[in-house]
Amino acid sequence: MADSRFFRREGPFTLAQLASRIEAEVAEGADTSVEITDIAPLDGAQKGELSFLDNPKYATAFETTKASACIIAPKFLDLAPKGIALLVSHQPYRSYALAAQTFYPDSVRPLDTFGNPGEISAQAHVHASAQIGEGATIEPGAVVSAGVEIGSGSVISSAAVLAKNVTVGRDSYIGPGACLSFAHVGDRVTIHSGVRIGQDGFGFAMGLPTHEKIPQLGRVIIQDDVEIGANTTIDRGAGPDTIIGAGTKIDNLVQIGHNVVTGQGCVIVAQSGIAGSAELGDYVALGARAGILGHLKVGDGAQIAGRSSVIHEVPAGARWGGSPAKPVREWQRELIAVQKLGKRAVKK
Amino acid sequence: MADSRFFRREGPFTLAQLASRIEAEVAEGADTSVEITDIAPLDGAQKGELSFLDNPKYATAFETTKASACIIAPKFLDLAPKGIALLVSHQPYRSYALAAQTFYPDSVRPLDTFGNPGEISAQAHVHASAQIGEGATIEPGAVVSAGVEIGSGSVISSAAVLAKNVTVGRDSYIGPGACLSFAHVGDRVTIHSGVRIGQDGFGFAMGLPTHEKIPQLGRVIIQDDVEIGANTTIDRGAGPDTIIGAGTKIDNLVQIGHNVVTGQGCVIVAQSGIAGSAELGDYVALGARAGILGHLKVGDGAQIAGRSSVIHEVPAGARWGGSPAKPVREWQRELIAVQKLGKRAVKK
Amino acid sequence: MADSRFFRREGPFTLAQLASRIEAEVAEGADTSVEITDIAPLDGAQKGELSFLDNPKYATAFETTKASACIIAPKFLDLAPKGIALLVSHQPYRSYALAAQTFYPDSVRPLDTFGNPGEISAQAHVHASAQIGEGATIEPGAVVSAGVEIGSGSVISSAAVLAKNVTVGRDSYIGPGACLSFAHVGDRVTIHSGVRIGQDGFGFAMGLPTHEKIPQLGRVIIQDDVEIGANTTIDRGAGPDTIIGAGTKIDNLVQIGHNVVTGQGCVIVAQSGIAGSAELGDYVALGARAGILGHLKVGDGAQIAGRSSVIHEVPAGARWGGSPAKPVREWQRELIAVQKLGKRAVKK
Repeated sequence: MADSRFFRREGPFTLAQLASRIEAEVAEGADTSVEITDIAPLDGAQKGELSFLDNPKYATAFETTKASACIIAPKFLDLAPKGIALLVSHQPYRSYALAAQTFYPDSVRPLDTFGNPGEISAQAHVHASAQIGEGATIEPGAVVSAGVEIGSGSVISSAAVLAKNVTVGRDSYIGPGACLSFAHVGDRVTIHSGVRIGQDGFGFAMGLPTHEKIPQLGRVIIQDDVEIGANTTIDRGAGPDTIIGAGTKIDNLVQIGHNVVTGQGCVIVAQSGIAGSAELGDYVALGARAGILGHLKVGDGAQIAGRSSVIHEVPAGARWGGSPAKPVREWQRELIAVQKLGKRAVKK
Repeated sequence: MADSRFFRREGPFTLAQLASRIEAEVAEGADTSVEITDIAPLDGAQKGELSFLDNPKYATAFETTKASACIIAPKFLDLAPKGIALLVSHQPYRSYALAAQTFYPDSVRPLDTFGNPGEISAQAHVHASAQIGEGATIEPGAVVSAGVEIGSGSVISSAAVLAKNVTVGRDSYIGPGACLSFAHVGDRVTIHSGVRIGQDGFGFAMGLPTHEKIPQLGRVIIQDDVEIGANTTIDRGAGPDTIIGAGTKIDNLVQIGHNVVTGQGCVIVAQSGIAGSAELGDYVALGARAGILGHLKVGDGAQIAGRSSVIHEVPAGARWGGSPAKPVREWQRELIAVQKLGKRAVKK
Repeated sequence: MADSRFFRREGPFTLAQLASRIEAEVAEGADTSVEITDIAPLDGAQKGELSFLDNPKYATAFETTKASACIIAPKFLDLAPKGIALLVSHQPYRSYALAAQTFYPDSVRPLDTFGNPGEISAQAHVHASAQIGEGATIEPGAVVSAGVEIGSGSVISSAAVLAKNVTVGRDSYIGPGACLSFAHVGDRVTIHSGVRIGQDGFGFAMGLPTHEKIPQLGRVIIQDDVEIGANTTIDRGAGPDTIIGAGTKIDNLVQIGHNVVTGQGCVIVAQSGIAGSAELGDYVALGARAGILGHLKVGDGAQIAGRSSVIHEVPAGARWGGSPAKPVREWQRELIAVQKLGKRAVKK
């Protein structure tokens, strides 16, 4: 499936090997020693390949697929055509993700971007006082400043800049052109290209004749397993720290203000913005371009629709939308009422 | 007009030379051998300079201009003062663009940013396996990784990073600090500074305890004559490719998700966002901050007003606006109805 | 308070020294020779530290604070507990900012990001024709192109790129990975990482078969004491210049189009966008994600609420909000009217 110019494929793997890696079980009757060479969608799969079914609307594609094996939920077992080996999973999409990770491990966390994984390039700019762990990769043009500490196995890509005294944990990836300052980064963190972490929060004592800068004396803490999308900006705290909780996934071009704290496992879609001192609970989801006003709390598990503006506290588990954001039902009701109003105006 | 510190001017050109370059004709009676030295707006032009008239509201400026020549539509010929040479064009603004390109060719596509055009800098970081075409410029601090191919005449600016196996066609310009990975770029493409192309799309199998990354196994294809604005982000495909159609122009800080396909000649204004797997037809125009939901189609030639949120398929040729977006008339009607409602509330 | 790994603290300072630096007066009876070692919030302060009170809701914290001194407005003098030295200021928050700047001077304008302040790194890429003032810092991987002029005391961080003929004044800071072209930058300017200044404005003569580029022949002028947030983009003018007025503060991920002119002391919060040829007066404030349509004027001192879309001229001193933006009262009235309409629909 994937272009071999860019993606290195591992394998083949036997059905038994795959089952153990993807949290699935081989269905009765299948030959566990069958070798699987790749993953593919149902309609594009060839002999020897593994596909998955997660939605009954693809039942027809399932019936006619050439795939040799398929990941499937227990409830769809009856739909299976003859001759296909089944890997039964309670979370088929998750199992598919794990299968794809198995075949294409570099696509989970890049080994390098330049072409010399494991090398500390002589063309990198590494300060004498920096400490670099075993097996780390420092690419040409990367900048590792005084007092920086980098854990084993981490990759600092070309033109990335780690400012003075920043620390990066193990097996983390700092993409090309990303800049980190006043920050501590955990393990297995992925920071994509152009991310800006640790610059001053936007704090001024406004007034005449000049706006006086409030020194921003906090840091940015990026916990383990976080992923941060391209050109996203995360300001350091004003006094307290800005904290991105473990396992949180942030998309591209997101703005995160000073002192913001996110819980673990949050999902923040592209072009969203979280103003200073706002707090997200665990597993909060923000749709694209959602905006959160400063100093607010969004409760655990709350979901905010894309393009909404949150200006009040959001209870745990709530689903809100609109501008200003409110419970989704109220918001939808208002949209419909306005639509009717517009139509009525025409009839008159 | 332009500051000679930054802009190199060519010329002078005779009226005849200009006419042939800008798709215009010299009006009867004008001396085609007159030399023109520069372009300028009607009210600022001096003797020897070329201006243009595209809007009758500038008729007064036209009457009193000191310009020696003017580009003009046939319908405005009557407005012309005596003594000015006229270049008649059916698309005066387009002709003006071509004239400005003639006088200031470097402003169309930079020859370099550092000051040594045509040089492959010894301070660039070029992998031994990279292939660089004749006449290409590779500036200090630029990073050209393993397996990269660069066509003749292309410019890779300082601190730009081309990751492993990326290809760039002929006469393209990659601005300072731009990063490309998993991408193929065509001819005559302009990529401004800080653009991020080819990083992972935002794909996760959401769940507890962790969100599992879906490997993103597609590429980004940038076709010929595309222009991409500063700090814009374009994610690579999840399996299929992300494709930017020929001649499409994208402004700054735009987000384009995985698997998005745009037709040719689209225009996407600043801070817009196109979610994953959405598709734009040919010559679609998105105003500033328009948002397109994932998996939607926007038909050929459709125009979306700034700040609109498109959540339904848009027919070809339609003009939509609002949030959610709808035909412009409906949207305007609703805005007016709400305005009246607000005013009525005051009267009560 | 601040992590000494990242922040260098100066001091101690006597009460008398501080008073003269922060535009405050020592209240009667206080020992002006007391030494103050740091700043801290009321509830976290220890003996020897300076805090501030600006809001009566912290009166309780004020009564029990361990701080040795406190900045306070005259009107709150009665609330002061015994034994605390008071610095009386008519602008306590401003005085606090000045105090914090006194203790942490590097946090106002960084001396460097790499660890060798005052050094012109041999690993920087400096063109032979560039002129660098005394005491400037040029960090490893920074790019200083032909004809560039840098004033004394300025810092050009790693991976920052100054393109041909750019000028930077004195005591300015160009953050890591920022790129400037076709630009003149004043004194004491702070440009954070990833900022893009001077690339082409988005100007095309739209049409078939191709959109023809309008050469962008203006510059960007950044006046003194401006601050520009991470990954913000400022396009150069089309013919006139793009101008950012003295003392203007711009947050992260803001888009500023060609020919925009801002007055002095404007405040532009994150993710806002100002379209081409728009003009802001002096001391205009834009909330987060405000959008200003092209060719409009926003009068002196006007305030625009976050997420508003301005499509009409805004009078001086006005407070507007909404989409399209209107006086705040009208906007609020419409929001309430729509809310009622939604509720009424349910009752029926």
